[in-house]
Amino acid sequence: MADFSQEEKVYFMTEALKEAHKSLDKAEIPIGCVIVKDGQIIGRGHNAREELNQAIMHAEIMAINEANATEGNWRLLDSTLFVTIEPCVMCSGAIGLARIPQVIYGATNAKFGGAGSLYDILTDERLNHRVEVETGILAEDCASIMQTFFRQNRERQKEAKRLAKENSEFAN
Amino acid sequence: MADFSQEEKVYFMTEALKEAHKSLDKAEIPIGCVIVKDGQIIGRGHNAREELNQAIMHAEIMAINEANATEGNWRLLDSTLFVTIEPCVMCSGAIGLARIPQVIYGATNAKFGGAGSLYDILTDERLNHRVEVETGILAEDCASIMQTFFRQNRERQKEAKRLAKENSEFAN
Repeated sequence: MADFSQEEKVYFMTEALKEAHKSLDKAEIPIGCVIVKDGQIIGRGHNAREELNQAIMHAEIMAINEANATEGNWRLLDSTLFVTIEPCVMCSGAIGLARIPQVIYGATNAKFGGAGSLYDILTDERLNHRVEVETGILAEDCASIMQTFFRQNRERQKEAKRLAKENSEFAN
Repeated sequence: MADFSQEEKVYFMTEALKEAHKSLDKAEIPIGCVIVKDGQIIGRGHNAREELNQAIMHAEIMAINEANATEGNWRLLDSTLFVTIEPCVMCSGAIGLARIPQVIYGATNAKFGGAGSLYDILTDERLNHRVEVETGILAEDCASIMQTFFRQNRERQKEAKRLAKENSEFAN
């Protein structure tokens, strides 16, 4: 298990936040992830579900796929996954399947979280792989970019509604 | 929700079993999956973790990705996923994220199942998507191909051990 200093944790979570900003720029739910091994980033990912039209393309999945390709191995032993928001059920399952031993996430996800909130998949003793979990690194920044997205999303919906109304007036 | 006759269920599970045989032929854990919409298969998948070196590449994930591409949509509304073995935690999460409303699986997976055995993710009322689940279609065939794999795997391990022993004798 890698033993990161607080400074290193903040550094890698900032890299995950850079990934989240890629999603925000594309009007996607802004979650970002990096996977680190021996002090190097071996996989990066950001949520790209809408852009790629792939239901599974969460930040963690993209990062795991990239790290698998980097390593030429589906097992990501001795690595650490940094992600801005608590992994969902699917991603928690994927982290275990990829044999990642350590997860550090920013903010919790009370509605969908599979790593402590709704479920506790990463530490379930019935499963064949258990993960050390730490949370709270840059939690406010990680949550704040989500709030920005949902505010912008409401504005987009309002604008779309206004345009639809305008168009219906023209149609009369 | 599609209303399949018993004959149709057996037909599509047989197609999922054909996918499982692709995994068996490559010495992968033999699980297969098809996704059906309006009576047509829109996605097929088989477990290919070792071949592709991708931790996430379970049968359901491959089939969901293919169905997303076929439909040009990450939402697989009005579709049914047939899979030979009960989905794991990751795949159960992925099925919900893809908004698949119906899952029919063959045999249960007591050790890793996320759709009734260890967890009941597909019917969890706290999540924003619930799935109708049916099990038992061709259950014996679906379990039997798994047993074939594990028997062949033990034989491969035995043979590898024998060869290693032979080599160590040559080295002396």
